[in-house]
Amino acid sequence: MGKIILTGDRPTGKLHLGHYVGSLRRRVQLQNEGDYDRMFVFMADVQALTDNADNPEKIRQNIVEVALDYLSVGLDPKKCTLYIQSRIPELAELTTYLMNIVTVSRVQRNPTVKTEIKMRNFDTNIPLGFFCYPVSQAADIAAFKATTVPAGEDQEPMLELTRELVNRFNQIYAPVLVEPQIMLPENATARRLPGTDGKEKMSKSLGNCIYLSDDADTVWKKVKGMYTDPTHLNVSDPGHVEGNAVFTYLDAFSTDQDFADFWPEFKNLDELKAAYTAGGIGDMKCKKLLNNVLNRILDPIRQRRMELEKDIPAIFDILKKGSDDAREVAAKTMDEVRRAMRIDYFEDAELIRQQQEKFNSTK
Amino acid sequence: MGKIILTGDRPTGKLHLGHYVGSLRRRVQLQNEGDYDRMFVFMADVQALTDNADNPEKIRQNIVEVALDYLSVGLDPKKCTLYIQSRIPELAELTTYLMNIVTVSRVQRNPTVKTEIKMRNFDTNIPLGFFCYPVSQAADIAAFKATTVPAGEDQEPMLELTRELVNRFNQIYAPVLVEPQIMLPENATARRLPGTDGKEKMSKSLGNCIYLSDDADTVWKKVKGMYTDPTHLNVSDPGHVEGNAVFTYLDAFSTDQDFADFWPEFKNLDELKAAYTAGGIGDMKCKKLLNNVLNRILDPIRQRRMELEKDIPAIFDILKKGSDDAREVAAKTMDEVRRAMRIDYFEDAELIRQQQEKFNSTK
Repeated sequence: MGKIILTGDRPTGKLHLGHYVGSLRRRVQLQNEGDYDRMFVFMADVQALTDNADNPEKIRQNIVEVALDYLSVGLDPKKCTLYIQSRIPELAELTTYLMNIVTVSRVQRNPTVKTEIKMRNFDTNIPLGFFCYPVSQAADIAAFKATTVPAGEDQEPMLELTRELVNRFNQIYAPVLVEPQIMLPENATARRLPGTDGKEKMSKSLGNCIYLSDDADTVWKKVKGMYTDPTHLNVSDPGHVEGNAVFTYLDAFSTDQDFADFWPEFKNLDELKAAYTAGGIGDMKCKKLLNNVLNRILDPIRQRRMELEKDIPAIFDILKKGSDDAREVAAKTMDEVRRAMRIDYFEDAELIRQQQEKFNSTK
Repeated sequence: MGKIILTGDRPTGKLHLGHYVGSLRRRVQLQNEGDYDRMFVFMADVQALTDNADNPEKIRQNIVEVALDYLSVGLDPKKCTLYIQSRIPELAELTTYLMNIVTVSRVQRNPTVKTEIKMRNFDTNIPLGFFCYPVSQAADIAAFKATTVPAGEDQEPMLELTRELVNRFNQIYAPVLVEPQIMLPENATARRLPGTDGKEKMSKSLGNCIYLSDDADTVWKKVKGMYTDPTHLNVSDPGHVEGNAVFTYLDAFSTDQDFADFWPEFKNLDELKAAYTAGGIGDMKCKKLLNNVLNRILDPIRQRRMELEKDIPAIFDILKKGSDDAREVAAKTMDEVRRAMRIDYFEDAELIRQQQEKFNSTK
């Protein structure tokens, strides 16, 4: 059994730089390194419905946006299977069986569920589907026998539950499912990008995101308005780089080449940081640098997106082909799951033979 | 939209006289009256797994037994669709979507779940699948657009939840699901048959059942050992018919014709009861009558069963054919469900057109 990589996103909005830093960039890198047997990237529309049941239109509108984002950043349907979760009903079937081997209290203890319940003010009025979603996630992973799930540290408890369920299933029935491991981001800056307002996280509802599909003017407007250091009133004042969103972004994106091309006065970010801390560096100059750095990344993405947007039916074709391929894999796993559980009655020649014998012998 | 009847049983053991009185007899009658568009009878193996996850062999062994019981009592695959729940993965898919429109606390309030949790000493260690099963039951019914569910009064809260979910689904998305009604037993004696030991209910674990597949010797042994009236020590003593299992069974099964044929001294059960109450009627004579009454019902069932047992592969063929037919119906409902939820992206020509226009217009 080789390496099978699986990741996904909830298609509830266009993807932004936070997604790029946190996962998309890594995915493309993993895809292009080719060190895997198969790579799956999916749009978790079923999961998105667990807390958007009354607004499926939001999901419907964003399926294409997310697909365009995926393809624009460089995910390649020839190398990885792009699919839509709801097209794989086998995931619901596997979820059903996994739900029998986990207790209500075990799911309640899941810190991800706890946090999300708190964040969303759900309390006891949580939709049942939302409460159960850690088990669905386990099915998402197990149905593809994924070995490797690139995700942030906050997803570790979810992976832990998946491993528990995989082990329990394999022990009770037969060893057909595979234990996945989390693949954490390589460095700290890749873990979380703050919003343009300096708040912990980019979030659509806070309006502090830079989207991969934003045009150059929009990005410049957002960069100009970014949160820096409120104590840095005059250019000559010493500045602080900690908690300064512009520097956090430069940490995440800038390269030495960027300095050579856009601000040759400094060899690298460390030199700029030192100068900024000492005083004498204006925020606007830093923002111009960041704008250049971002556009160097975003320009080719925008270029690809513009091409892709010309033929939307082709995007749907890619997703349909990927979903059909993914479904085949999940269906094969479910055949093994049913056989392991011995509920594949009609394919179970031994059962038919043995039952016939039982009745013959009682005559 | 016509009448669609749906019922089922958990295939965790052979069916007994309690099942016969409580549901099987009525089903055969409904089937033969023909006042419906379609009738479905299913083996709820997925539901049985919610609290038998570690013992699927029990279910595997009983699928054929229950099928033989169904066919022996007179369910006719030409008139009603017999199927196995696990062969219809669309039920898991529908369950997933219904779980999003019901809260955890609403399911917790379900008295059936409450009672069962208490009965099984589950407490907080309930399997999640068991906790969620009222929603699965709603999906079982809604996937077939069943209008009519023959069941006992204790199932009314389950039907109530199903109607709630159907209504909520139809309101949020589009009116594709159908509200089912419960069809209660016609009379009190049909509601619950006590065990042969006089305990409230026949139960495999109490060893107080008379099975439809018991041979005549076994039935006579069980009838001889039945609980009657502990104060009725001598034949001449006055006897009590209340709480006397033999009389409860006679209430449920005996006809005036039985008296004419087996005990012509009495015209009907009322006359026998009067005599028994006055004193002078021995328990053994009553038991002999009951044995005759039961065998008149069980003999043709046994006869048919013996024939059916000769060709077990044919039984599997019937179940496979029924499951394929049932799956087609559920798949059609799920197509409508996905369309109503507008997550049928690839069949949604309007979505593709509108998204293409959106991107064209931003150029």
